[in-house]
Amino acid sequence: MRIDDVQLYYLAMPEIKDIGDGSQDALLVRVRADNLTGWGECEASPLVCLANWICPMSHSACKSVSHTVLGRRIDTPNDLVQLGDEVRAQGLDIAQTAHTWSGIEIALWDLLGKKLHEPTYRLLGYERAFPKTPYASQLFGQTPTETFAKAQQARRAGYRAVKFGWSVFGRGTVAADRDQLCAAREGLGADGILLVDAGTVWGENVAAAIERLPALRECSAHWLEEPFVGEASFAYAELSEHCHGLELAGGEGATSYHAARNLIDNGKIGFVQIDAGRIGGLAPAKRVADYASQRGVTYVNHTFTTHLALSASLAPYAGVEAAEICEYPVEPTDLARTLTRETLAVVDGQVSCPEQPGLGIEPDLDVVRRYLVDTEIRVGGKTLYRTPDL
Amino acid sequence: MRIDDVQLYYLAMPEIKDIGDGSQDALLVRVRADNLTGWGECEASPLVCLANWICPMSHSACKSVSHTVLGRRIDTPNDLVQLGDEVRAQGLDIAQTAHTWSGIEIALWDLLGKKLHEPTYRLLGYERAFPKTPYASQLFGQTPTETFAKAQQARRAGYRAVKFGWSVFGRGTVAADRDQLCAAREGLGADGILLVDAGTVWGENVAAAIERLPALRECSAHWLEEPFVGEASFAYAELSEHCHGLELAGGEGATSYHAARNLIDNGKIGFVQIDAGRIGGLAPAKRVADYASQRGVTYVNHTFTTHLALSASLAPYAGVEAAEICEYPVEPTDLARTLTRETLAVVDGQVSCPEQPGLGIEPDLDVVRRYLVDTEIRVGGKTLYRTPDL
Repeated sequence: MRIDDVQLYYLAMPEIKDIGDGSQDALLVRVRADNLTGWGECEASPLVCLANWICPMSHSACKSVSHTVLGRRIDTPNDLVQLGDEVRAQGLDIAQTAHTWSGIEIALWDLLGKKLHEPTYRLLGYERAFPKTPYASQLFGQTPTETFAKAQQARRAGYRAVKFGWSVFGRGTVAADRDQLCAAREGLGADGILLVDAGTVWGENVAAAIERLPALRECSAHWLEEPFVGEASFAYAELSEHCHGLELAGGEGATSYHAARNLIDNGKIGFVQIDAGRIGGLAPAKRVADYASQRGVTYVNHTFTTHLALSASLAPYAGVEAAEICEYPVEPTDLARTLTRETLAVVDGQVSCPEQPGLGIEPDLDVVRRYLVDTEIRVGGKTLYRTPDL
Repeated sequence: MRIDDVQLYYLAMPEIKDIGDGSQDALLVRVRADNLTGWGECEASPLVCLANWICPMSHSACKSVSHTVLGRRIDTPNDLVQLGDEVRAQGLDIAQTAHTWSGIEIALWDLLGKKLHEPTYRLLGYERAFPKTPYASQLFGQTPTETFAKAQQARRAGYRAVKFGWSVFGRGTVAADRDQLCAAREGLGADGILLVDAGTVWGENVAAAIERLPALRECSAHWLEEPFVGEASFAYAELSEHCHGLELAGGEGATSYHAARNLIDNGKIGFVQIDAGRIGGLAPAKRVADYASQRGVTYVNHTFTTHLALSASLAPYAGVEAAEICEYPVEPTDLARTLTRETLAVVDGQVSCPEQPGLGIEPDLDVVRRYLVDTEIRVGGKTLYRTPDL
C-alpha cells in the first residue's frame, strides 16, 4: 500500500481544566489506502504534533514526520518497523518526533492489520493474546474521604486493582500522604491491589520519596510509580535500595526504546510502563516488552484516554502471559468516552485485545465532528495545515 | 523584572538544503523588561517551537511554555533556575518543551546580565572565564580529496583542532571511511587535533562502530563523537570497552541534565557535548558542567550556528579551566554568519567569552528582517501566533 492519505484531527473538550486528566483533548490520525482506513492516536499536545507533522525542513536530521512518511509503501510489518527507524533518524533533532509519529504508526498498524486480515498483536509477532486484569486508573481525591469513596466505588464496579495518582499526593506533608494512602487501602479492602502514582512530584529528590516509604509499605502498595522524572534513572536506582519489596514503576514518558531500557538497566524498576502513543508507536513498545521479559521486569501499558489508545497499548504485550495487569481508564472525559464506537469491556474482571483485523476500534465520526478544533498553520504565505474534512 | 514581552522570530535561508548544516534556519527570541532587551536562540525546529510556545493546555502537565513564563518575575539567577524547573514540570508531557524553553531561558540570562551589569558566566557562578581553543567544526567532504582540502584550509585559517562529521562518513564501507580519515589527518598534519563526528549513523550497532576503530586509531583521532543515538547509553558503554585510549563524545541531543548524566554515568563517555539551545538553556548546561568536572569528564559546547548561540554555549563552562576546547562554527550560512553584529573572534588561536553584561552579542535587525519567515497559527478561530514586528 502506498501511503499518501494521512489526516490529523485535533479534538478537545470545550473547557480544558488544569488537572492531571490527560483525556481532555486528543490528536486522532486517519490513514487511508487500498479502500481501507486505519486509525491511531497520539498521547501528546495536538498543536505541537500538528506543527511537527508539516514543519519545513531545518536540515537533514530535522525534518517533519510527513516528509518521511508520505509516498512510502507499507506491505509488511517489517516495512513499518523500518519506516519508524527512518522517521526517527530524519527527525532526530526535533524532540517532538516520537510523540507525533506514534499516532501515525498506530494508524498504519491498524491499516496493515485490516489489509492482512490479522489483529495487530499477531502482526507484532504474538500467536495469541492473553487477557489482562484491568486496574482502574484515577486521580486521588482532594481529601482522604473522597479517595476512600473512589476506592469503594471502584471495588463495587468490579475492579480488584486500583491506581491512585497525581492531584494532592506528594505535595503536602508526609502525614497527609499517609492519610490518603490509608483511605485508599480502607476503601479497597485488604485483598485489593493498591497502586500509587506520584506523577514525578519529587523531581529527583530521593529523600522526599524515602519519607513516604513507611506509609506505602503500611498500606501494602503494590508499586510506587514515577517518584521522579523519567530520565533520572540514578534517583530511581538510589530509591530502589530502600524499597524492600515495594517495586518501582516508571517509563510512561519514554520517547524511545532506549529511554525505557535505561530505566530498566539503570533505574532498577520492577514495572516498565509504556505509552504507545508517545514512545513512537507499537514497534518500539513491543521491543521494550521483549527486553523487559528478558530482564525479569513486568511490562504494563500506560493509557488514560480512549479505547482506541487502550487497544493500541495492549497489543505490544498481549502475548506476554506473565504481564497480568493493564491500566484501564475509568473516569475519562465525554470526548474520550464517546470517541469510539466499540469499547474493550471488562468481562469477568478481565480485558482482552480485540480479535478483529487491526485494532478493532473505530471512531464515531459524529463525535469527532463535535469536538473538532479548527486549526490552521501558515508559513511563508502557504497553508501547511488546515483541519481536514472528515 | 516582570516578564511580559517575549517575542519569537522564525528566520530561514530562502532555500533549505538536505544536508547536515544546522545553520540554515533559526528561532530567535527577544525578551524586554525595564527598558532592556535580551536575546536568545533555540537550536530546534522553529515552527514546532512556535507551536509549543502558544499551544492550548491539554492537562496540568501539558502546558505551553508561555503559560508558565508570561507574567513571572525574574530578579536573580535563582529565579531563573526555578522558573526553568517549573517550565519543565508544567510542560512535562510535551517532548518539545526543552527545545522551546532553551532560547527563552538564554534570552532571560542575557536580560538579567544587562540588568545586573554582569556577564552571563558570572551569573552562573564563575569568577572568571578561561579562553578556549576553538575547533573548526565542519562536514566531511564528499570525497577524501575534498576533505583533505578542507583540513588544509582549516589549518591555514589558524585552527589546530578540526572536527569532521556527518555527510558520507559511516554510510559506506569501512575502507571508504578509512580513506576519509587518512585524508583529514594528512590535511591537518601530524600535530593537528582530529575530531570525528559519526552523527549517530550506526544507531545502536556496536559492531559497525568497532569496525572503524582501527582507522580512527591509525589516524590518531582525539575522539569519536555520537557513534550512536544519544539515549543508547548501553551501546556507548559497550563500545568504550574496545576503544583503548580513543575517547567517546556525545550528549548534543540531551534535553535535560538527567539525559546528559546518563551518558556520563552509564555511557562511559570522555567528553560531554551540550547544546545550550536544546537542553533547556544555561542552567541545566551549567549543572552538567559541574557534574562532568566531578566525574572527570570534559565538557564541550555544541554549536553549529550563530555567535549568539556560541556565546551562550560557552558561558556554562567558561570557568572550567581544564575544559580547553570549544566547538566553533566555520562554515555557517549567510543567515547565521551575518545575524549578529558582534562575533567572537579567534585571537592567538583562542576564543573568549564576552566580558560585557549579558551575552555580549546583539542581532543585526536588518538581517533579522531579511530572513524573517511570516508565520501564523490559528486555533478555534483565534490567532495564537503571528510573526511580530521588530
